[in-house]
Amino acid sequence: MDKKAEYFMQQALKEAQKAWDANEVPIGAVIVMQDKIIARGFNQVETLNDATAHAEIIALTSAFNFLGAKYLPDATLYVTIEPCTMCCGALYWSKIGKLVYGSSDPKHGGLSLLNSATKNINPLHPKTEIVKDILASECVILLKEFFKSKR
Amino acid sequence: MDKKAEYFMQQALKEAQKAWDANEVPIGAVIVMQDKIIARGFNQVETLNDATAHAEIIALTSAFNFLGAKYLPDATLYVTIEPCTMCCGALYWSKIGKLVYGSSDPKHGGLSLLNSATKNINPLHPKTEIVKDILASECVILLKEFFKSKR
Repeated sequence: MDKKAEYFMQQALKEAQKAWDANEVPIGAVIVMQDKIIARGFNQVETLNDATAHAEIIALTSAFNFLGAKYLPDATLYVTIEPCTMCCGALYWSKIGKLVYGSSDPKHGGLSLLNSATKNINPLHPKTEIVKDILASECVILLKEFFKSKR
Repeated sequence: MDKKAEYFMQQALKEAQKAWDANEVPIGAVIVMQDKIIARGFNQVETLNDATAHAEIIALTSAFNFLGAKYLPDATLYVTIEPCTMCCGALYWSKIGKLVYGSSDPKHGGLSLLNSATKNINPLHPKTEIVKDILASECVILLKEFFKSKR
């Protein structure tokens, strides 16, 4: 078990809970450099009336502002659910060092859609390390419970 | 010739010129509803130190704000260069009615990379109409001249 990855994924889950509390699909993200969280984000599509206001985009913009830099090769983004193709594209441009996600998303996940057994397209930067299945159950259960509460 | 499309692409080219004037890769976009421009954007990656600050994203965010809505099914986005996979993803989430672009981008264009003869993935919403090659020469020449001026 990767205790450090689990710790930061717990922090991403806290962000996801903030999304739930705002009646948003509960997905959260944190960006980490040298074991410190430098940016946080949670899904705010409804609150901001902005279809692009995903947790990852908000965390990335915050990290760019914090560092005054547009590339993040020494940073790791932790996100509770696999990023969509838009967010994978944003991570590509950011040249992020590492992506860690909780649960896969077969429907919208950029890696699931593009980098599968049949499709050999990497939507991320070739230098970006990828780790998945960190607290996957917790991450996906939060999402499922949210949608169940809406029915 | 589609005079209306050419008119709005000229407006997108004006946005691209603003990018050049700010020493940014010259790509511009406008969003049109009922023959009126409701949002504009030009590439501001360097100015904002934000790798996601592409012309399309800036125009989309502006349109969401203007309309107070997160979907744009009745809008058309005109952009000088084919959108990258990130911007295609953003357009997907926006459910934009129509995408019109000037020149294709074989290296980063989302449609060129994913929706080619060999790869049958549509990165846009299935209901989004796509038109290309509007003032393609003008759009790509601006880009090439910019990079030439940098060498």
